[in-house]
Amino acid sequence: MGERKFIYESKSLPSWNNPISHAVVANNMCFVSGQLSVGLDGKYIAGTMKEESKRAFRNFFAAVEAAGFSKEDIVFVDIAFCDLNFLHEVNELFISLFPENKRPARTVYEVSALPFGGKIKVMGTAVKAD
Amino acid sequence: MGERKFIYESKSLPSWNNPISHAVVANNMCFVSGQLSVGLDGKYIAGTMKEESKRAFRNFFAAVEAAGFSKEDIVFVDIAFCDLNFLHEVNELFISLFPENKRPARTVYEVSALPFGGKIKVMGTAVKAD
Amino acid sequence: MGERKFIYESKSLPSWNNPISHAVVANNMCFVSGQLSVGLDGKYIAGTMKEESKRAFRNFFAAVEAAGFSKEDIVFVDIAFCDLNFLHEVNELFISLFPENKRPARTVYEVSALPFGGKIKVMGTAVKAD
Repeated sequence: MGERKFIYESKSLPSWNNPISHAVVANNMCFVSGQLSVGLDGKYIAGTMKEESKRAFRNFFAAVEAAGFSKEDIVFVDIAFCDLNFLHEVNELFISLFPENKRPARTVYEVSALPFGGKIKVMGTAVKAD
Repeated sequence: MGERKFIYESKSLPSWNNPISHAVVANNMCFVSGQLSVGLDGKYIAGTMKEESKRAFRNFFAAVEAAGFSKEDIVFVDIAFCDLNFLHEVNELFISLFPENKRPARTVYEVSALPFGGKIKVMGTAVKAD
Repeated sequence: MGERKFIYESKSLPSWNNPISHAVVANNMCFVSGQLSVGLDGKYIAGTMKEESKRAFRNFFAAVEAAGFSKEDIVFVDIAFCDLNFLHEVNELFISLFPENKRPARTVYEVSALPFGGKIKVMGTAVKAD
């Protein structure tokens, strides 16, 4: 029977008051909640787009790892931002985060608002080989 | 061979004119279409955020169940709203809908409009153990 | 062991400068990046909603096929547009693209902007039977 895990906390993940899992593992898949520029105390940290992007990705990777998956297992990343003019910064970060020939699929779009007034939200899916 | 099912209707699901399935089952996964505050007759029912949220979740669960899955199989929920100031109401509802230690992963974001002028759209994924 | 493939290019896919895969295959699933009205040279082609929708779907299907999947394997389609008043056009296209009794699940919503100033973005997931 496949494994089902609900990841609520780890020392590398923000504590938060949201009534949701940071990530859920079902069989060989990991579904990660939308991650923002939030510190380990669960408080939003406002910053430049580059700073918020780095912190949101840091939390996204922390959730993937707390779930027992690795960055290499990430197959899809969904990025919502509040200003698509920053796509260039996000692309630069993406290049530094994922190896050239193994980059995940991705979608980007501009939304009118994110929780806490954040500038970027990162979520995604990881899959282990059967 | 894995099962493939297209869920178009059930007595607990809104009839609608949309040229889409309410849910599709592939192997042990269920992909649910975005659900709004719509009655069984397929017509949008405007209400307070709380009312629309309850009805959208009701339809979401109805689609999951019509597909042969249960609420416990839901691993991920994607919620788009038109006004993030209502996040508190959605969190309260989430607490009442899912057990404390088995809550799905989730993403929330504000969009500029939803079909019918709805206030909230709920979609998500359910997975059965292999 | 499950197959993992990163689809970067094929003769039917736009060449682009984005640091992402067009699609990623993991086991029997295919995750497709958001596709826009972009030509094979990677340049955005502005058009009417109908024209942009057709081209975005064309690219979406090309990514699915380059990944070794077929249109029939598509289980879920996520469509972001910049003006929901065009939902009728998108529904008409959907009817022409998918057979009546095997249509994927779908979500639609209006966003404030898409890359290149595009009018529509199409992404989705395909699954092969186990």
